[in-house]
Amino acid sequence: MSDETQNDLRERLERASEEHDGAAAESVLDSVSSADAIRAVSQMSEEGRAALLASLPTERAAALVEQIPDAQAVEIFDDLAPDAAARIITELPSAEQADLLGDLSREDAEAILASMSPEDAREARVLTRYADDVAGGLMVTELLAYPEDFTVEQVVSDLRANAETYQDYDVQYAYVVDRRHRLRGVLPMRKLLLAPPSQPIRELMVRNPVSVRDDASLDELRELFDKHRFFGVPVVDRRGALLGVIQRAGVEEALAERTDDEYRKALGIVGGEELRSMPLLVRSRRRLAWLSVNIMLNIIAASVIALYQDTLSAVIALAVFLPIISDMSGCSGNQAVAVSMRELSLGLVRPGDVFRVWLKEVAVGLVNGVVLGGLIAAAAWLWKGNAWLGLVVGAALALNTLISVSIGGTVPLL
Amino acid sequence: MSDETQNDLRERLERASEEHDGAAAESVLDSVSSADAIRAVSQMSEEGRAALLASLPTERAAALVEQIPDAQAVEIFDDLAPDAAARIITELPSAEQADLLGDLSREDAEAILASMSPEDAREARVLTRYADDVAGGLMVTELLAYPEDFTVEQVVSDLRANAETYQDYDVQYAYVVDRRHRLRGVLPMRKLLLAPPSQPIRELMVRNPVSVRDDASLDELRELFDKHRFFGVPVVDRRGALLGVIQRAGVEEALAERTDDEYRKALGIVGGEELRSMPLLVRSRRRLAWLSVNIMLNIIAASVIALYQDTLSAVIALAVFLPIISDMSGCSGNQAVAVSMRELSLGLVRPGDVFRVWLKEVAVGLVNGVVLGGLIAAAAWLWKGNAWLGLVVGAALALNTLISVSIGGTVPLL
Repeated sequence: MSDETQNDLRERLERASEEHDGAAAESVLDSVSSADAIRAVSQMSEEGRAALLASLPTERAAALVEQIPDAQAVEIFDDLAPDAAARIITELPSAEQADLLGDLSREDAEAILASMSPEDAREARVLTRYADDVAGGLMVTELLAYPEDFTVEQVVSDLRANAETYQDYDVQYAYVVDRRHRLRGVLPMRKLLLAPPSQPIRELMVRNPVSVRDDASLDELRELFDKHRFFGVPVVDRRGALLGVIQRAGVEEALAERTDDEYRKALGIVGGEELRSMPLLVRSRRRLAWLSVNIMLNIIAASVIALYQDTLSAVIALAVFLPIISDMSGCSGNQAVAVSMRELSLGLVRPGDVFRVWLKEVAVGLVNGVVLGGLIAAAAWLWKGNAWLGLVVGAALALNTLISVSIGGTVPLL
Repeated sequence: MSDETQNDLRERLERASEEHDGAAAESVLDSVSSADAIRAVSQMSEEGRAALLASLPTERAAALVEQIPDAQAVEIFDDLAPDAAARIITELPSAEQADLLGDLSREDAEAILASMSPEDAREARVLTRYADDVAGGLMVTELLAYPEDFTVEQVVSDLRANAETYQDYDVQYAYVVDRRHRLRGVLPMRKLLLAPPSQPIRELMVRNPVSVRDDASLDELRELFDKHRFFGVPVVDRRGALLGVIQRAGVEEALAERTDDEYRKALGIVGGEELRSMPLLVRSRRRLAWLSVNIMLNIIAASVIALYQDTLSAVIALAVFLPIISDMSGCSGNQAVAVSMRELSLGLVRPGDVFRVWLKEVAVGLVNGVVLGGLIAAAAWLWKGNAWLGLVVGAALALNTLISVSIGGTVPLL
């Protein structure tokens, strides 16, 4: 889509939402691909986005909220009236509800919860209690659960009666619970196909199914899904009551999100997500938070160099090589960071492996330090015709490389 | 798991595989969590891993191959005898087969294909024709397909007869095809529950289902799954024949892999995956590939500084500040890279948006350049008591920051 059409699209959306013409806004959104729509929405002003959501029919607004980045959705909900926000949030899948409410300020979240129906608010409140990287925060509560004394016929007639609702559920299993809603078994849907209508599901279910506690960590969940080929696993509280289902896709998404986060941090974006649609000062402040710490470290390093000012002015060529040494060892350190984070995300290393990783990095650091140090030494020698200068500069680079890969490789494991 | 137990685990695996005692190796693997097992395997030597796979029962070996990183699996298959490799590969899901064969050298892959059954080899060959980021390379070929003149009863009896095989299939739909295997419809499994046995599935199926062509790109797939809530979408060739199914989870995994790859590149790991279990020289060479380009750029930059050697020796304090300026602007550039890659992966920007992104970066660059430049200017002034020095150093940092965020923010979009 060309820039002109993109701008035109954004303007049509802005106009429709200023005029509170939800139908027009909806037809604009429907006339383009979902990717183009999201890009146009992300280029609207914060108020424009809030006006758009307020004017759209509730279900369409919810569908849009699901697609835009969380950080942007949070901004919009800050600006929406609590009852409009509550209407949209009620339409979202449970896990998204919890994410969004959890990211809002406590005050805003409470105002929205107060505008929701008591039943919906109670359910949402339960989910927001969980951190977003434990089973309780990642699970969905849209699931099929039947009492253990139900028959095949009763289940099938419930499926038939609620087919409309259930088709949004990504489930291949029904769960069987006792009177106190404790998980008793899992009922593969295909078993319903083969059983006589009058058979109690108790006789068909798989007993003692694999389940996870609501406080299971993301790493525990990864391990569980690595071990079993399940598509989803039931989540229970400490009394064994069924709370929700954790899906493989949900765990994979959370793991990818965590990797993204770690890489962003490694590249110096630390204060949470930054999108270019955010206000300038927010974006500047987030980057400065990290840069200002870094500049302090740099000034400390510089003051060490300053101690040798007399040496520097005697051999001014050293000054020319200082930035090279500093930059190159920084780059070597970054590479070590990248490899450690990759190995962490693949589960090949753990915090306890610091020493082993360090030995591996020292080996690479020695080889690369000698090669790069040799290169720069040769450059210095050829350039200045001074072999000693080459030796000093090369040795400094080799030593710095060794130190920086040691730090870069091990710090992510600490 | 402590380091001692981890070492002990690795040694037990090595001993069992040296003695070709597959049963012992299997019981060692089964005695620990899958994550511990993978970590132990990744710490074995390359030959040790090949010996382990050769000694394990085929199915257990295939399960292990599925869990270890692809780069490691490829190394192992280089070392395995073609017939042992073929036996293990035959057990893998189709998409993994294709990935692995595609990553091997053409020679090794051909040797393995020649040892597979003609039928399996033919199927694997079809899949390896595809790049691993298009629908054909990401699809699974494990699916349920029935001729359109089948009845509910015929489908149900096939399901019952093959329940064992099908339970590894992550499918909620069966596909309906005509005599030339062209996709005609999709049959939601739950419809089978509610229909009389004699009804032809043609009357139950959803006609004209959404499908993708085998050459659809990863971005097209992302857009498709953003738009529809489907769990899987059938893949067809240009004649409309059903080839496989592309699953939401497969697309998400490929997208996460692509993001990982981009971040690794941003941090200077460019020659493909690096794992610390790889031989030292491979690891060194991959890092040096990037570092040696970088050192050349650095030497060019240094030669500019060298032109001003006389100025430098006159104001030696400038030399102390040069590494700070170089490092800080590098960091600012990295932050801009991180934000651009994040926005790319969220679909908020596209190559055409270079100018808009650049304007956004210039704004942040100006603010942060002025703040950081002011800080370093103040430091220079206080330290050396020379306001002019502060001004020069501060202005240099501000200007460099502006240039580096412009480059860092826009280059990922080109």
